[in-house]
Amino acid sequence: MISDRKAFGYTPDMTSTEQSPTGDSAPLTLNQIAELAGVSAATVSKVVNGRAEVGPETRALVEGLIAEHGYRRRRRRIKAARHIEVVFHELAGDYPTEIVKGVQRVAWTHGLSVVTSELGGRHTPRQRWIEDVLSRRPTGVITAFSAPSDEQRVQLATLGVPLVVLDPAGNPGLGVPSVGATNWSGGLEATRHLLELGHRRIAMITGPAYALSSRARLDGYRAALDAAGVPVDPDLIYQGEFQIEDGVVYTRRLMALPEPPTAIFTANDGQAIGVYHAARELRLRIPDDLSVIGFDDMPSSHWILPPLTTIRQPLTEMGATAAEMLISLATGEHLHQKRVELGTDLVVRESTAALLK
Amino acid sequence: MISDRKAFGYTPDMTSTEQSPTGDSAPLTLNQIAELAGVSAATVSKVVNGRAEVGPETRALVEGLIAEHGYRRRRRRIKAARHIEVVFHELAGDYPTEIVKGVQRVAWTHGLSVVTSELGGRHTPRQRWIEDVLSRRPTGVITAFSAPSDEQRVQLATLGVPLVVLDPAGNPGLGVPSVGATNWSGGLEATRHLLELGHRRIAMITGPAYALSSRARLDGYRAALDAAGVPVDPDLIYQGEFQIEDGVVYTRRLMALPEPPTAIFTANDGQAIGVYHAARELRLRIPDDLSVIGFDDMPSSHWILPPLTTIRQPLTEMGATAAEMLISLATGEHLHQKRVELGTDLVVRESTAALLK
Repeated sequence: MISDRKAFGYTPDMTSTEQSPTGDSAPLTLNQIAELAGVSAATVSKVVNGRAEVGPETRALVEGLIAEHGYRRRRRRIKAARHIEVVFHELAGDYPTEIVKGVQRVAWTHGLSVVTSELGGRHTPRQRWIEDVLSRRPTGVITAFSAPSDEQRVQLATLGVPLVVLDPAGNPGLGVPSVGATNWSGGLEATRHLLELGHRRIAMITGPAYALSSRARLDGYRAALDAAGVPVDPDLIYQGEFQIEDGVVYTRRLMALPEPPTAIFTANDGQAIGVYHAARELRLRIPDDLSVIGFDDMPSSHWILPPLTTIRQPLTEMGATAAEMLISLATGEHLHQKRVELGTDLVVRESTAALLK
Repeated sequence: MISDRKAFGYTPDMTSTEQSPTGDSAPLTLNQIAELAGVSAATVSKVVNGRAEVGPETRALVEGLIAEHGYRRRRRRIKAARHIEVVFHELAGDYPTEIVKGVQRVAWTHGLSVVTSELGGRHTPRQRWIEDVLSRRPTGVITAFSAPSDEQRVQLATLGVPLVVLDPAGNPGLGVPSVGATNWSGGLEATRHLLELGHRRIAMITGPAYALSSRARLDGYRAALDAAGVPVDPDLIYQGEFQIEDGVVYTRRLMALPEPPTAIFTANDGQAIGVYHAARELRLRIPDDLSVIGFDDMPSSHWILPPLTTIRQPLTEMGATAAEMLISLATGEHLHQKRVELGTDLVVRESTAALLK
């Protein structure tokens, strides 16, 4: 169980260790902050409750004091916090489900429930989002494949609501705890698997450039080819949006090349499903005529026919790890590691085969 | 936009229309309820905030008064309610995603966000659930494939939090607004489609008996056979749990019968995917050797190979309808219909074919 006494308290990761004006390093009360800032307690209350009607200068002054000295929230508020809020850029497909499973596993052992919300496809939440989240008074917030803006992060920190970024789309921000997967190694391993099967014309359909994960997977692919002395052919690389349709469209183009690939590595399992569809349309058999390897190991990769060889990204474990970090932060513990990358694994099924000579 | 003034107010569906002791039918304030019940305002406050530390008799007394006269909540609380809470029995597969899409579409036009939580596979929430939900102060609650107990429903009504049950697993409770699909007609239509293709040995893999939806689909199947003068053969009916594995296991058994079926109707798309796997194992081609029709029209039915013929259950529209009903209730409007069933549609793709003579 989380200790209520400690939840939302002073945490070494969010505040400096300088001496407070009260003579020790204990966090300040609302009244102490008001006195130091020369404003009313009501104004400080507005800032720490995320309300809009405070001028930017006053807000910055109060936030600065809290960042420096910490803020001792009253107990009333602490008792209300009983859930972890998981924010997805979009609730679609199996990705959110796999992550929520892991968050729940940890949350439930601490008597916390889990609520999810989504940003409707955006990767940075709108300003109103933070007011909504705070009105539900979460123990902490996990954002998946999305991250709050710098300003929103300051607001969360000011309110003592810990944040962990899971599978950061872009740079999660300096010092923000995050959990990812070893995407570069995964890309390397997928490509090596195809090389070991004798393939040399290996194409890659990757994800969007703004996603660090897809950049890392592409770099791993390039590194494996390079290490094997196989030149990287830019004609064999297409950049998609992590959608099934990418696999359909780019496989058609790839197979129309004068020298088409014999294997395709896709940056997620959805794109691999698209490759299957294009292959059927082109009357190519998988894996006899074309090997396909995906990334993620979503449930669909088990039951698609033929079952998909893929790189397992441990989304459920990533969710569990993020929840553990969040609970550590909420109870004022020190995080030993702020940036965690969990290992990926090659899962060989039936969509890859040795290149026929 | 929801009118703040009306939200959580007196609604004709939740309270009687008797005259209140104040001489009109306006809902009572907290203090008026306390006076009538002969208890302190603090006690009434505990009841209306879902807290545990009130004796059962006192609770029943206060709840009875509120049911009779209504309760005028203070404005402070109303302002905090900015989200719809959607409760799933389990967050797994595409089912929750499709529903949330529809809820969001409506919620967002009213400036509300959507949060989801799950019951870990249970169909009736634990008692603590209601305290968790209420601590987040939702505008209203939608439960999907699950429903609160009678006692929990009384608590929600007492607190003025409207409830709509979506795709009720069992009986949603007398007078509880609910949204479902025309499951019986869907079962009928699926079976008719196979009959029209010349099939007579038509098997059904159905869902669990506690789910009204799977009972209705099975009855539709029986009715179609009966109307066509085809006897219902109990050997051709298996009851599963809406899982992929059901399709695998029961297809093996069905195809081992002395006179195996030429077509299988499954109660959801997941089970149909299981049929595909068993068919591959048994070297049966779909649809040449075996026709398969599912139920739901989940995204997977588009991209599985061959694409699945299925009955579309309009989950997204069901979510939108539930959200609209909820917002009507929250703004004190009268619901014209308490039980809504949205139509299902036959979607013919490539997994069904005419029976070869």
